Amino acid sequence: MSQTLLYRFAEPPGVLRLESGQTLGPVTLAYETYGTLNPERSNAILVLHALSGDAHAAGADPETGALGWWDPMIGPGKAFDTDRYFVIASNVLGGCKGSTGPSSPNPATKKPYALEFPVITIADMVEAERHLIDFLGIKRLLCVAGGSMGGMQTLQWVASYPERVASAIPIATTLKHSPQQIAFDEVGRQAIMADPAWNNGQYYATGQPERGLAVARMIGHITYMSDQSMEEKFSRKLKNEDYTFSFTADFEVEGYLRYRGDNFVKRFDANSYLYITKAMDYFDLSGEKLIPPGKRVDTRFLVIAFQSDWLYPSYQSQDIVQLLRTRQADATYCEVASTYGHDAFLLEVDEQTHLIRHFLRKTFENVSGGAPR
Amino acid sequence: MSQTLLYRFAEPPGVLRLESGQTLGPVTLAYETYGTLNPERSNAILVLHALSGDAHAAGADPETGALGWWDPMIGPGKAFDTDRYFVIASNVLGGCKGSTGPSSPNPATKKPYALEFPVITIADMVEAERHLIDFLGIKRLLCVAGGSMGGMQTLQWVASYPERVASAIPIATTLKHSPQQIAFDEVGRQAIMADPAWNNGQYYATGQPERGLAVARMIGHITYMSDQSMEEKFSRKLKNEDYTFSFTADFEVEGYLRYRGDNFVKRFDANSYLYITKAMDYFDLSGEKLIPPGKRVDTRFLVIAFQSDWLYPSYQSQDIVQLLRTRQADATYCEVASTYGHDAFLLEVDEQTHLIRHFLRKTFENVSGGAPR
Repeated sequence: MSQTLLYRFAEPPGVLRLESGQTLGPVTLAYETYGTLNPERSNAILVLHALSGDAHAAGADPETGALGWWDPMIGPGKAFDTDRYFVIASNVLGGCKGSTGPSSPNPATKKPYALEFPVITIADMVEAERHLIDFLGIKRLLCVAGGSMGGMQTLQWVASYPERVASAIPIATTLKHSPQQIAFDEVGRQAIMADPAWNNGQYYATGQPERGLAVARMIGHITYMSDQSMEEKFSRKLKNEDYTFSFTADFEVEGYLRYRGDNFVKRFDANSYLYITKAMDYFDLSGEKLIPPGKRVDTRFLVIAFQSDWLYPSYQSQDIVQLLRTRQADATYCEVASTYGHDAFLLEVDEQTHLIRHFLRKTFENVSGGAPR
Repeated sequence: MSQTLLYRFAEPPGVLRLESGQTLGPVTLAYETYGTLNPERSNAILVLHALSGDAHAAGADPETGALGWWDPMIGPGKAFDTDRYFVIASNVLGGCKGSTGPSSPNPATKKPYALEFPVITIADMVEAERHLIDFLGIKRLLCVAGGSMGGMQTLQWVASYPERVASAIPIATTLKHSPQQIAFDEVGRQAIMADPAWNNGQYYATGQPERGLAVARMIGHITYMSDQSMEEKFSRKLKNEDYTFSFTADFEVEGYLRYRGDNFVKRFDANSYLYITKAMDYFDLSGEKLIPPGKRVDTRFLVIAFQSDWLYPSYQSQDIVQLLRTRQADATYCEVASTYGHDAFLLEVDEQTHLIRHFLRKTFENVSGGAPR
């Protein structure tokens, strides 16, 4: 069982000063924790989610029983071993799962922010998380880890607070979005904004732009899978015995996409989709931004990519490693054989467990001069 | 200069009997021809277009001056050399560029068919084209050629009328859509049908579902380019000096997609988009359907794929070649080095010209016992 907690910060310096120059406050972050913080406060790991994730990373939700999005990776004896480590999972700023975002009430108007919410960046997300880590009394994180956008936040933690991150595990991620990645995000945004129900973001009294958001999610789903994993899962299997000669869903893959799209609109806010994808597109730690030349960073890195991931291709992870090595950082790279595409960071449990468990032990020994309890 | 002509067939057996079991008539096909049919009628080449193409394959449009979609490939001295060959380009059944499709008047109601138009297949398109070829008095085509959906029609010509096709050049195509290809088509259809202006296909009096069709086209455009060609063309270049921190188009790639989407709705019918993509998804000549086992086919094949084409990956062209060779067909395969992605069949002119010119000469020699005039 896991319980989502809320951390609210409002008073200066608790109001966020954003990259855009705007300020935002009060800010609430939803988070969960698993395991126990040791007396030295040296065993804390921050786990960060992807586009549509939330703070519920592990265990069963007390109400619905739903398992966390990275449950196979977090728990006793798992990759992020809660018998040894204290794991914190935070929902992002701009989200819609308890953290402050465009669907939250604007204190100035008491109505949802909608597009009055300022455009945020990955660095702003990390700044909010830094407040949470301060609140939890943790000076230095043993590790920051996450896949996809969680990996971007992981890299941003190193860029923003290198001395507070003993190790980092960016998975299936990039230093910056390519034009193809921006393009897929932009089409998703266009699908949402094309829906008249979006109403320039003012839909909280009238209902979500469900059709547009569903289309955005369907596009996303195609990019999360690989050609091969779709072939293995669906091939050309039909829902009925033969072609219907109509525009209903003939193929199982069509039914699957429609189902996934329709389900998503029940649990995710369309404006959050716009804000979060924009933050991903703006993200750029290439060149001198991750680690300035001449600056020494003690953070250890484990960079993981997956062979069939065409949304975040392995060359982008290799670019991260190459940049780290030119800065004399301690970086290990592993490209995992997988047919799952980008979803592999959620599904390739055994291989990631093997890599991460070993890496965390080594990091803990370095930090504390001994093995974790 | 080239002029689009119309061929209309209405009387039995001119009414089309469709794969679905329905009939359709009268049927009009828009087509253009280039070059001169020789007295033996042995130098005719049928060129077939992709999803959004039309009959205007070469030369300048007499009104707008716009060049045909395969103009660099068709003309005097070009790959399809109009000094030697008689080239016919037909718009597909179901289209919206002069051929009968969902925007055409339904003779029963005098109003546009809309969704009363029967769902058609690639075989139905080819059956309509066969009427046109009969009308032009051509017993056997020297060649049928086309890329993408044009390649599907090319293969379907061999399946339907092997004795009427001396050679075939399927380019950047497949024996059948994979679930990933179906998925991209389905998301495009969902984007159109999600637009309230679509109105269950009844929009001809009220105006196109422009927003939905634009989103569908934007998705298409991403799949037509490669990661590398997008990087070369756009990288992360901004439209303005800095991030706008808004949901306007920050990146050039975003502006490009919006522009392409907005432009497309001026020239293409949303219902045609639905019908044509459905025909592509239904297409399946795998197994024993292209050439039944034991059946001998004299058609010569030149199968062309492009290295960076991830929408119609080269393994699909290799599957065509493998199937042809198990049926003892004469099949040459060429995988062209290109960074253009699926668009390469429109852009890689030099390499295709070299391959096709040689292949056509050889075919003509085989057919006529001598070189073309």
